[in-house]
Amino acid sequence: MSQHIGNVSINSDALWNDIMTTAQFGGTPKGGIKRLTLTPEDAQVRAWFKTTCEALGATVTADSMGIQFARIPGTDPSLKPILIGSHLDTQPTGGKFDGIVGVLGGVAILRALHETGHKTRHPIEIVNWTNEEGSRFAPAMLCSGVFAGLFTENYANTRLDRDGTSFADALKSIDAAGEEPCGQHPVAAYFELHIEQGPILEAEEKTIGIVTGVQGMRWYELTVTGQDSHAGTTPMSMRADALQAAARLIASVQDIARAHGPDAVGTVGLVECKPNSRNVVPGEIFFTADFRDPEDETVRRMEDAFRQDIVALSEEYKVDIAFEQVWDSPSVKFAPPLIEAVETAARDLSLPARKIVSGAGHDAAYLARIAPTTMIFVPCAGGLSHNEAESATRSDVADGATVLLRAVLATDQKLS
Amino acid sequence: MSQHIGNVSINSDALWNDIMTTAQFGGTPKGGIKRLTLTPEDAQVRAWFKTTCEALGATVTADSMGIQFARIPGTDPSLKPILIGSHLDTQPTGGKFDGIVGVLGGVAILRALHETGHKTRHPIEIVNWTNEEGSRFAPAMLCSGVFAGLFTENYANTRLDRDGTSFADALKSIDAAGEEPCGQHPVAAYFELHIEQGPILEAEEKTIGIVTGVQGMRWYELTVTGQDSHAGTTPMSMRADALQAAARLIASVQDIARAHGPDAVGTVGLVECKPNSRNVVPGEIFFTADFRDPEDETVRRMEDAFRQDIVALSEEYKVDIAFEQVWDSPSVKFAPPLIEAVETAARDLSLPARKIVSGAGHDAAYLARIAPTTMIFVPCAGGLSHNEAESATRSDVADGATVLLRAVLATDQKLS
Repeated sequence: MSQHIGNVSINSDALWNDIMTTAQFGGTPKGGIKRLTLTPEDAQVRAWFKTTCEALGATVTADSMGIQFARIPGTDPSLKPILIGSHLDTQPTGGKFDGIVGVLGGVAILRALHETGHKTRHPIEIVNWTNEEGSRFAPAMLCSGVFAGLFTENYANTRLDRDGTSFADALKSIDAAGEEPCGQHPVAAYFELHIEQGPILEAEEKTIGIVTGVQGMRWYELTVTGQDSHAGTTPMSMRADALQAAARLIASVQDIARAHGPDAVGTVGLVECKPNSRNVVPGEIFFTADFRDPEDETVRRMEDAFRQDIVALSEEYKVDIAFEQVWDSPSVKFAPPLIEAVETAARDLSLPARKIVSGAGHDAAYLARIAPTTMIFVPCAGGLSHNEAESATRSDVADGATVLLRAVLATDQKLS
Repeated sequence: MSQHIGNVSINSDALWNDIMTTAQFGGTPKGGIKRLTLTPEDAQVRAWFKTTCEALGATVTADSMGIQFARIPGTDPSLKPILIGSHLDTQPTGGKFDGIVGVLGGVAILRALHETGHKTRHPIEIVNWTNEEGSRFAPAMLCSGVFAGLFTENYANTRLDRDGTSFADALKSIDAAGEEPCGQHPVAAYFELHIEQGPILEAEEKTIGIVTGVQGMRWYELTVTGQDSHAGTTPMSMRADALQAAARLIASVQDIARAHGPDAVGTVGLVECKPNSRNVVPGEIFFTADFRDPEDETVRRMEDAFRQDIVALSEEYKVDIAFEQVWDSPSVKFAPPLIEAVETAARDLSLPARKIVSGAGHDAAYLARIAPTTMIFVPCAGGLSHNEAESATRSDVADGATVLLRAVLATDQKLS
């Protein structure tokens, strides 16, 4: 395979420079980025993306959802484009790498092709997906969802931010939409480079995560209703303490995940206590639960175990427990030929690598529904992400982009 | 004893009428009262108290903390006054009975003495303690605390409400202070009638709670610090989940209280989770704990058990747990002669009664430090208090006031 690649290689200094340059659009004093989708800061980075890609010989367009495509033609006009991308929007206190390395890694490939004059068979397109984070407009991955046919444009356009601004109005406000209707774009294959957002690669000293899919996940909301009463005057035997029942259920989420290991995870991330006063026995607790595993069957079995605990605790604690599944995202399996291309590239480069299942959702999870797709992970310090202290090394990012380049070029050769 | 009382009896209709009349000062649409201390609504009820007591032959004064005293003279000028009282301020969503029945029960006694011409040996004073609730100015029982020498006037005057108004300025704003310096008032004995604020009397169908003291209580604040991380990408084995450790500790508060029964109680009433996002493993949990028992030694043993669990869980969950005792209120034992007077009165009236320890703090807990003191409880529906739905029956309130009257008159005879 390396013969085909010839002298095409990633300019790691230019890639790192792009990361640091774009980090100034919405840059925070603590070294992070606040660049919510479709804000003036997002407009700045979009303009930079367009100018930079055009300087590298690409034609940059946008579709009706503001998704940007920077395209260079291939040698075979009958072939669909290979897409490479991620997102340039961030969390409110986001870091410099989440999403960004996927887009700028794509820009680095454009640069490599441009500088060497290497021609691919397929057109290559670098994509910036609008509103991946979902911080401004829920849900996350909104526009890759429209692109892949999961959501309608109307659904996306009518999402509101906390100030009541619609997605459609936000799109107009920075003039981000293009002519092409979203969802009619041909795709031969899709690659996404991303930081792991978890601690595994760093802990195992691996540079490359060969991502085989996205784990299945289900989200739940629970409301435990007891009776609030005076903490000093209500005997233990006469209480219906919603928090005590909730504490046992919170513990059971962890116990269930551990019992379904090694890959299963279970999390309670949000808890609200009412009336939340130190001398009142809590009458109502709202909390969320999240179960994930690469196998959907394991997620289902965890839910069953949780339901059993809920029934038992409701009786034991004389409380009512309302339980609702609010999200069910089945697991995604990435395309074996693309996974193999990534694995081969890492091996040829002698980079320490391991197969890994993505714990988080990504635009790639939706793209996998309509085209052969895979992802490449690189380590991030301490597994920290969605945080201004998010950090990845210059060397790991460059290695990730090099693996991306090789996997794309190999796929360009093999895919028809 | 009944001989001494002659034809003195409580006018239950007038007492109920007083409760319903004063309930309109700060009355809420749901039938509760919002009458925070030293607000215009509090000024209204204070003016009503003064006018009403003066019409019953009393002289009404206030001290420097705005504590009101409605006094009728006794036959022996050498004797200190017997005080009867409670408070007229309420919680933000308070009910019609908490505090109020203690003051208006006193007014009913003034009325009984006034209408029959019965003379006591001791002066009788009905007292309205300022800022018992602590809802506007923390801590609770602020002015009975100054009265009993626990707090200085300067400490009280410099307490601030949420808007930054000082207690001293609030006192001036409704012109509530009088000439007498707080804390120099003579007291022969103190009686306080109150709703139970708990479910025991109602559950056991008792009309009268013969209160033998106030249980000891200790308050704690805990901060569990782990590491927040992504709920999807952090394996269970690599987490430092602050909420999971906290859930075990919350459960242990209940387990410890149950193990130290039958009177011990343990409560976690307040929980705050950070960052409180459904797909983030919580990095920090703040929560409170509250242990109470009539015996201080039991409270101490519960704290010891809790400290052991904290150490064990901190190690098991790889989290840091900061633990602080923020309040230690030793148990209070009321005066046996006064307890006996209440017990005798209930028996003479054939009212179902039981001895009970107050689970909540009251002005009486501070008064007990400087004079013979006791309390009388009457049932409240469902044990509900600090709630707009707080409810007590006309009959129970009248029975409580009658026991109060008899206990006061018996004490007036016996006490020198």
